[in-house]
Amino acid sequence: MGKKMRYLLDYQEGERVVGFCLVKSKEAGVASNQSEYLNLELGDRSGTIMAKLWDVNAEIKEAIQVKAVVKIDAVVQSYRGKKQLVIQRIRLASPADEVVMESLIPISPIPPEELWGKLESVIHSLQSKTLQAILLEAISDSEIGERLRQYPAGVKMHHNYYHGLLEHIVSLLTAAERLLPLYPQVDRDVLYATCILHDIGKLYELSDPIAPDYTTPGQLIGHLVMGVEIVTGICRKLGIPLGDAEVLHLKHCILSHHGEVENGWGSAVSGKTPTAVLFHYLDQIDSKMNAIGQTLSDMGEEEWAYANVLRRKVWRGY
Amino acid sequence: MGKKMRYLLDYQEGERVVGFCLVKSKEAGVASNQSEYLNLELGDRSGTIMAKLWDVNAEIKEAIQVKAVVKIDAVVQSYRGKKQLVIQRIRLASPADEVVMESLIPISPIPPEELWGKLESVIHSLQSKTLQAILLEAISDSEIGERLRQYPAGVKMHHNYYHGLLEHIVSLLTAAERLLPLYPQVDRDVLYATCILHDIGKLYELSDPIAPDYTTPGQLIGHLVMGVEIVTGICRKLGIPLGDAEVLHLKHCILSHHGEVENGWGSAVSGKTPTAVLFHYLDQIDSKMNAIGQTLSDMGEEEWAYANVLRRKVWRGY
Amino acid sequence: MGKKMRYLLDYQEGERVVGFCLVKSKEAGVASNQSEYLNLELGDRSGTIMAKLWDVNAEIKEAIQVKAVVKIDAVVQSYRGKKQLVIQRIRLASPADEVVMESLIPISPIPPEELWGKLESVIHSLQSKTLQAILLEAISDSEIGERLRQYPAGVKMHHNYYHGLLEHIVSLLTAAERLLPLYPQVDRDVLYATCILHDIGKLYELSDPIAPDYTTPGQLIGHLVMGVEIVTGICRKLGIPLGDAEVLHLKHCILSHHGEVENGWGSAVSGKTPTAVLFHYLDQIDSKMNAIGQTLSDMGEEEWAYANVLRRKVWRGY
Amino acid sequence: MGKKMRYLLDYQEGERVVGFCLVKSKEAGVASNQSEYLNLELGDRSGTIMAKLWDVNAEIKEAIQVKAVVKIDAVVQSYRGKKQLVIQRIRLASPADEVVMESLIPISPIPPEELWGKLESVIHSLQSKTLQAILLEAISDSEIGERLRQYPAGVKMHHNYYHGLLEHIVSLLTAAERLLPLYPQVDRDVLYATCILHDIGKLYELSDPIAPDYTTPGQLIGHLVMGVEIVTGICRKLGIPLGDAEVLHLKHCILSHHGEVENGWGSAVSGKTPTAVLFHYLDQIDSKMNAIGQTLSDMGEEEWAYANVLRRKVWRGY
Amino acid sequence: MGKKMRYLLDYQEGERVVGFCLVKSKEAGVASNQSEYLNLELGDRSGTIMAKLWDVNAEIKEAIQVKAVVKIDAVVQSYRGKKQLVIQRIRLASPADEVVMESLIPISPIPPEELWGKLESVIHSLQSKTLQAILLEAISDSEIGERLRQYPAGVKMHHNYYHGLLEHIVSLLTAAERLLPLYPQVDRDVLYATCILHDIGKLYELSDPIAPDYTTPGQLIGHLVMGVEIVTGICRKLGIPLGDAEVLHLKHCILSHHGEVENGWGSAVSGKTPTAVLFHYLDQIDSKMNAIGQTLSDMGEEEWAYANVLRRKVWRGY
Amino acid sequence: MGKKMRYLLDYQEGERVVGFCLVKSKEAGVASNQSEYLNLELGDRSGTIMAKLWDVNAEIKEAIQVKAVVKIDAVVQSYRGKKQLVIQRIRLASPADEVVMESLIPISPIPPEELWGKLESVIHSLQSKTLQAILLEAISDSEIGERLRQYPAGVKMHHNYYHGLLEHIVSLLTAAERLLPLYPQVDRDVLYATCILHDIGKLYELSDPIAPDYTTPGQLIGHLVMGVEIVTGICRKLGIPLGDAEVLHLKHCILSHHGEVENGWGSAVSGKTPTAVLFHYLDQIDSKMNAIGQTLSDMGEEEWAYANVLRRKVWRGY
Repeated sequence: MGKKMRYLLDYQEGERVVGFCLVKSKEAGVASNQSEYLNLELGDRSGTIMAKLWDVNAEIKEAIQVKAVVKIDAVVQSYRGKKQLVIQRIRLASPADEVVMESLIPISPIPPEELWGKLESVIHSLQSKTLQAILLEAISDSEIGERLRQYPAGVKMHHNYYHGLLEHIVSLLTAAERLLPLYPQVDRDVLYATCILHDIGKLYELSDPIAPDYTTPGQLIGHLVMGVEIVTGICRKLGIPLGDAEVLHLKHCILSHHGEVENGWGSAVSGKTPTAVLFHYLDQIDSKMNAIGQTLSDMGEEEWAYANVLRRKVWRGY
Repeated sequence: MGKKMRYLLDYQEGERVVGFCLVKSKEAGVASNQSEYLNLELGDRSGTIMAKLWDVNAEIKEAIQVKAVVKIDAVVQSYRGKKQLVIQRIRLASPADEVVMESLIPISPIPPEELWGKLESVIHSLQSKTLQAILLEAISDSEIGERLRQYPAGVKMHHNYYHGLLEHIVSLLTAAERLLPLYPQVDRDVLYATCILHDIGKLYELSDPIAPDYTTPGQLIGHLVMGVEIVTGICRKLGIPLGDAEVLHLKHCILSHHGEVENGWGSAVSGKTPTAVLFHYLDQIDSKMNAIGQTLSDMGEEEWAYANVLRRKVWRGY
Repeated sequence: MGKKMRYLLDYQEGERVVGFCLVKSKEAGVASNQSEYLNLELGDRSGTIMAKLWDVNAEIKEAIQVKAVVKIDAVVQSYRGKKQLVIQRIRLASPADEVVMESLIPISPIPPEELWGKLESVIHSLQSKTLQAILLEAISDSEIGERLRQYPAGVKMHHNYYHGLLEHIVSLLTAAERLLPLYPQVDRDVLYATCILHDIGKLYELSDPIAPDYTTPGQLIGHLVMGVEIVTGICRKLGIPLGDAEVLHLKHCILSHHGEVENGWGSAVSGKTPTAVLFHYLDQIDSKMNAIGQTLSDMGEEEWAYANVLRRKVWRGY
Repeated sequence: MGKKMRYLLDYQEGERVVGFCLVKSKEAGVASNQSEYLNLELGDRSGTIMAKLWDVNAEIKEAIQVKAVVKIDAVVQSYRGKKQLVIQRIRLASPADEVVMESLIPISPIPPEELWGKLESVIHSLQSKTLQAILLEAISDSEIGERLRQYPAGVKMHHNYYHGLLEHIVSLLTAAERLLPLYPQVDRDVLYATCILHDIGKLYELSDPIAPDYTTPGQLIGHLVMGVEIVTGICRKLGIPLGDAEVLHLKHCILSHHGEVENGWGSAVSGKTPTAVLFHYLDQIDSKMNAIGQTLSDMGEEEWAYANVLRRKVWRGY
Repeated sequence: MGKKMRYLLDYQEGERVVGFCLVKSKEAGVASNQSEYLNLELGDRSGTIMAKLWDVNAEIKEAIQVKAVVKIDAVVQSYRGKKQLVIQRIRLASPADEVVMESLIPISPIPPEELWGKLESVIHSLQSKTLQAILLEAISDSEIGERLRQYPAGVKMHHNYYHGLLEHIVSLLTAAERLLPLYPQVDRDVLYATCILHDIGKLYELSDPIAPDYTTPGQLIGHLVMGVEIVTGICRKLGIPLGDAEVLHLKHCILSHHGEVENGWGSAVSGKTPTAVLFHYLDQIDSKMNAIGQTLSDMGEEEWAYANVLRRKVWRGY
Repeated sequence: MGKKMRYLLDYQEGERVVGFCLVKSKEAGVASNQSEYLNLELGDRSGTIMAKLWDVNAEIKEAIQVKAVVKIDAVVQSYRGKKQLVIQRIRLASPADEVVMESLIPISPIPPEELWGKLESVIHSLQSKTLQAILLEAISDSEIGERLRQYPAGVKMHHNYYHGLLEHIVSLLTAAERLLPLYPQVDRDVLYATCILHDIGKLYELSDPIAPDYTTPGQLIGHLVMGVEIVTGICRKLGIPLGDAEVLHLKHCILSHHGEVENGWGSAVSGKTPTAVLFHYLDQIDSKMNAIGQTLSDMGEEEWAYANVLRRKVWRGY
């Protein structure tokens, strides 16, 4: 019933594409006949693709801006082994087009309500009233709560799609839950709180969930320390003493989750508890599995494809 | 009912110790009165302790050798902040003493039959007949099977006690089993086979399970490549083609389990599949959790203690 | 008029020393005649020296604890090329001895009032009312203010003596003042505020100013992030918006003052403003000059001596 | 007598080239007039050159594939300081053209029979019957023997031409023969065997000798371990015990020939015998001399040219 | 009075530029219509810009060479987010054009006479007659003296403009003068001499002050050792003993000014005196402040811009 | 005929040693009976051994100085697994004892005349009159010539014995001679000159050939740059232009012989010619083979022994 929606990356070389998409980047050039053209990066739910718009006039050049929604009529061609669009016609979308955000950006395959439910149930299961109060306060905050339902976990490395951060958190919570019985030396509640809050600073390190860029505070302070400051702010609000041992432990896990300081990967301090050490590896596993998973699903028929997160090729297997 | 056995590390400063232990190392010295003395490292189930034996004659000096079982009568004193024994009397144990090995060396707290049962049940659950056949052949081999019930996972870093390797394998299998549902891009059977075989080369890299040292083949070839050669030997025996994709994948996971080659930690190749990448982190988690756990249980009243595996202090928590 | 006070390090081999000092560390041992002895590290204003106390009984062994003030009667001998005391008599100091702290620990050669005056005058010179308010609040805080008059800048590397941190701050302020005219791209007020607050977290990372050790929060959070949290606490108290650009800049300079993250020296973020980059080098200069200066004044007649801070020998010159 | 054959790189800017060559890579593009073009990398015995083919139709675009032999009619132009071909006419070669492989790919300047003769004479000179038997078996194997007469030593770094690996082996044998009298602590026979077998795994790590790419086993296992497995396979076939000391030593030299593990250059184990240490340096010398030699002969009139193998410029000298 | 001279970088997109500039680099290409074009990098006092010259004939292609002065008539267009010129007309400048060098290359904003005066006054203030004599001899040498008034401090990293090295030296002298009172352990005269001579080898490492490239001796020996050889040459001429302690110290500071050898930044020896250690940091400060300052003044309205010297973005501030 | 001379290391545990040796280091201590003792390091041709001298009086303590020749009567005992002497009687040697230097220090096994003859014959074979003149001048210099016949190649790493440097040079010349025919891209005369002069700076970097320590110029300048300065001094004396290409090349090889600058091993510049690259590896081979060779001959019955030069154990083989 009803034909399946086709997205940008679903079309093959030679096909004609008519549809809506988002302008992700734009640069102007001058051809040898001295007319101007635009190189556009266009995106929708399926990903992004480069597009060429020849012979642009000043009006079009001005109208087509980054983050604009446009309707295009284009042909897929091959350029340097990759598909590229050559645009025949283009116009800005209008409200009348009733384009929905979900069709324009990549999005986590898991519904946000399901993820949110899992998050809440873990928080309610905590035995530490201190950590539970901090977490409830965090997700009840209207700004944090809203962003947590929207933000990706990063600009490009992993879980880089709508509510990707929430998916990453819930995946970590599940992994933590499953490994905890094996390692009784780990503090269960601190581990769960770290899963939820380790990247909470990213909600302010990144500018927005659609075409995220780094904010100025994000670049000056970084999401690890920003996360710690959010925790401290909540503690002050709730009257939790800053020297509380569980709070210290939680902050330690946030500050050390990029691994050992000596490796130069961005931790403010090296992990010094089993909980901190375990979390670092869980985070590595979940982010790398997600990124390699994306590479594997994009590689089509190829047996090997380059995975940015590993800086080498990965094997599709048999 | 019946008094609890006391071991070397159970005694406090000032107490007298009478009992059996193993000589782990020995060195001779000459005191300022020109009489000779021995510095001995003695061990039993509870761990090891340094001991001083003053005024030794040639006969005693000859009799007390590394790996000998001795009976001592000694006093616990404090030296440089650590307990040390000053031996009053010492003699070699005789068969009549009926000393049991279990009392002389540290040993995994989990009974080996329980571990072995888990190992076998995982092997029987495999869907890959190829990998299952390789694993069954491995554990059925009389030498591998016997060593697997005895060897530690290493000389000192982690799971460094009787059947420590088997404990490590089963712990990894459990962790793998629990995380697999989260990461469907991982090959379940290859992951299980890697858990079981990744350190199988250690059975030949180390000399024996009691006071292990590195063998010559161990130092020249290393346990990663030795493990791969064992797999190849089994394949030849069973008639499994060497180019079999699952076998290649298993070997890849064994060769890459020390992480990226560029880090210089000893992998022969960097992990290039989700299975290989995941296994590396699981192995890091299990070995670090075990080593930190040992540090935590040895630290007594201290809030902080040095953990060799991390090359920094760890926190006991609250 | 009046003979000059002599301190521990002023005595030469063969001389007899009678005086008060502080026990910095202690370890017990057992001699070949099975009597016990203590190895003590004793310190006073002039520095520290190792001391041997033979034939100790249980009472003395119990009484002599780390951080105790003792009176000794001892002889200077040479051991492994270094001076060492052999103690003939020792007793705990009593209130009647009227020992003053200044004689017991190394102390900055510059009077604290002079340093404090310089600190205040710089703060009053700031044009930024925001930063000025933060700094005034910090030094007016009774705890911070008191500790700032007492704490060293570190356990051993540089400015490791009474009010050494204050001396380090004032030295940095002077250096900053002198270089600012050359580099107009640097933010003067932020640079001054960073000089004063960059190590403020050390007041809580270290346990006390006499025989400092690392606190638990110090090891879990580290003095960079602790400093940022102090700044945030003051801002909240004063009603300064957390997004204030000058405050962000100050925090950035604190978090980046150990140099580039990639070097693995402990910065939480790499310096991204001329002010942050300049401060890192000023801090390196001031700490290294202080540490090398101490090595040079301790090296006596030697032409070369080992400087811990550089991990190589330094040259006294001609 | 007879004019000298001219190859692709022999032509200067402005000249017309008519001849046969191999398509090494191909990518399609779309010009501003929306016609399609191809960027081709063409190669023959003299090396490779980029070529432009404008206004291609679908038929040509389909016909010209990588590894095809083509006949071109083209003009040499200059682009970004490098020569480039602009193709006027192109067609696939047919059997009637009687093109010989030797004219299409770079090839070692030394005849393979001469190299093979040297290889055999060294093997016959060995005193170790074990190593001699292994080597004779290896070169008698029809697949290994054939590939050894064809394969390059690598895709691009050094000896990257037809039977380049054989040339590299013989060069190493000669160097080894000449240095052995100086270093009697080195095991002569193991050194020779390592020269011959150290890269034997490359015969399976690379796909073919004409336009080599990495195979799947090559990427998963790597040529060091593949080489060891070949040695083990031969030992099994010949009934040589796997614990034979000479065989262990040979495997050790193969596994360590990329230098110390800590450097992260790909050894599975660090060299622990004089033979292994010497071989690593001989291999570095021979590969770097070959690569720099190629850079020097390609640099023409320039005094300095970039050498990939060193990642810096090399000097032609005077 | 009189309109302000406009330079290349002063023009905005769409404007027409008529004026003189220097050809910094040139490369030829072939368009899809098979006509040739040139990509030129043109420069004047304001910096450099890329320019396109379409449809060139052989005569023009030959005439326009690197380092030629040309007159252009062009239009500013935007390409990939950067301004670019499309040249309509171009001709070589003739003597009659009376173009002055100062208008063609970037130049230090401080007049050379002022810099030179400062340099001389510092030299005259030295107390060490040995170092003073060496410095006077150096700046009196006609070649060194002339080059010192012209050369940049580098090809691109910092102070990369006409008499940039002299500006760098004087800036360092000023910084040294200001910090010396704080660090009495530093040798004042050696520090000043190092400021002046540390990069003196660059006068021979670089080919010329206009479009500098590395000379052959520069690449083979490097400016650190070249500087030491210049000092030695002067000492021989003046009859100063080569073992003179001040001369040794000066050479040590020159050879160590790139920091610790272990960092791999190009020092021949690690700094082992307070003077050498201080100078390294002063040089880092002055070069980084200059480079970041250039990035900041070039970044226009942007809040963040990439700084090559730091290999990351820098913040413009508020 | 005549009994073989026995040296310090020839005696076994329990034997009595009477003979002459050299005091290499000395440190005083105080025993628990408060009498003083000396720990001495004594050496002769066979190597060095630790020795204990109990109950020393002030006179003996003063008389026994480093570099003194003494006659001892002692007993060999075992301490921490190593042999150690307990001295019964000791006195200074007198001229009447007619002790010869050759019996007191380790010495190259090859007679110096033979090494010198080889050195001269290579120099006479050079085709480059410039390099030949430099080399003849160097070895004719009375100081250089004398030191070259005496100095070790280093304090402890390799060829650390009397005329060890000369042995190292001749060994390198032989290796160079043998490899040159394989690598025609290498400059024969520059390679030979580098073999002879690469470590010539060590003749001034080290204090003396008997108990060498680093000189002040050696630590400030380093033997690479010192060697270049010696070459320059000779060129000035002989009137050879400093810009001579062969001289530049020779200096380049000296300055780069510790490998790539980025590795941080002490080169002033990275090798940029085949000659420089080859020499670095030849030097590595010769020094490592010598050091490993010493470890192998010292290891006695052991199968594995620690080699300082590799920082790991080496295998004796079968």
